[in-house]
Amino acid sequence: MFELFFATGNKHKILEINEILKESGLDIKLVPIRGNKIEIQAETLEEIVSYALKQLKKKGVNYVIVEDAGLFINYFKGFPGPYSHYVYKKIGNKGILKLMDGIKDRSAYFKSVIGLIINGNFKLFSGVAKGKIANEIRGRYGFGFDPIFIPEGYSKTFGELQVSMKNRLSHRGKSARKLAEYLRHFFV
Amino acid sequence: MFELFFATGNKHKILEINEILKESGLDIKLVPIRGNKIEIQAETLEEIVSYALKQLKKKGVNYVIVEDAGLFINYFKGFPGPYSHYVYKKIGNKGILKLMDGIKDRSAYFKSVIGLIINGNFKLFSGVAKGKIANEIRGRYGFGFDPIFIPEGYSKTFGELQVSMKNRLSHRGKSARKLAEYLRHFFV
Repeated sequence: MFELFFATGNKHKILEINEILKESGLDIKLVPIRGNKIEIQAETLEEIVSYALKQLKKKGVNYVIVEDAGLFINYFKGFPGPYSHYVYKKIGNKGILKLMDGIKDRSAYFKSVIGLIINGNFKLFSGVAKGKIANEIRGRYGFGFDPIFIPEGYSKTFGELQVSMKNRLSHRGKSARKLAEYLRHFFV
Repeated sequence: MFELFFATGNKHKILEINEILKESGLDIKLVPIRGNKIEIQAETLEEIVSYALKQLKKKGVNYVIVEDAGLFINYFKGFPGPYSHYVYKKIGNKGILKLMDGIKDRSAYFKSVIGLIINGNFKLFSGVAKGKIANEIRGRYGFGFDPIFIPEGYSKTFGELQVSMKNRLSHRGKSARKLAEYLRHFFV
């Protein structure tokens, strides 16, 4: 079993990505490391993840993943985007629903970018899930804005889906499957 | 005339701080430098400014100021805080007023933190302006959330005050006067 560091403090992310690695038949276990990830303020997840990788490499970490994700609401030019975690903590799902009140265009997407350092090299994997903002908070699974996001072609929110089902449709499911596909070259 | 670098792209900030330096009788001119400031995601302006100073010093910049400011709304646990610039661009004053709709506690404060590197040493100066969120957008001066912020004891918003008057009451006026006071030791 190979241990891959995951610079995160979010247990949901660990759960979701671990599940994908397991499904892919890879004998890799994610080991969370905290307090080592520097997140910059930037408009794109790619910039944030790349900067975090550079800082981790400087510290001598040679095998690690970093993940950043956000909810991008089209009407608000991508808000809350890279600041989703902060905005969620401060105004919550209720705040987003209030902002969306009376707005017809409820389209939005979740995006996930996973950054990997392996043998000292950098690699990015991204995944997008299109959908819309629900009219009310629904579901107790997932985390963050999951209970107000309805993926395209479905009627349930991410908050109403358990991990394995969410992984099939979600941004993080997509980026993690690309990661798993890439890691296969090294470990199989 | 001494030239002090100011790592910013915001002409309003340059104008406001220059005015304070002039009032203080200091023969210092701020020279904007762009693209050199790295802003991290953090809950406090102090952390953001300190990190930016560290990165600038690493690049060999020995005389520079950095300023970061934010509007902290008490009801929303400090939102938008350190992310004020981003949130302003995305949801604007209209978005904040919508979030505040029906909320009784409209108290908020602006905070500014100026970081200085002088002779290779770091120094922070902060200023706070207490007040409340207006019921509507008023005024064409200032920038960002100025038109929806009413300082304590006044009825006008920052957006209705010209630079010299805003400087008397504002967070940035306060932090800049502390900066000027400190610089006096070196230049007078």
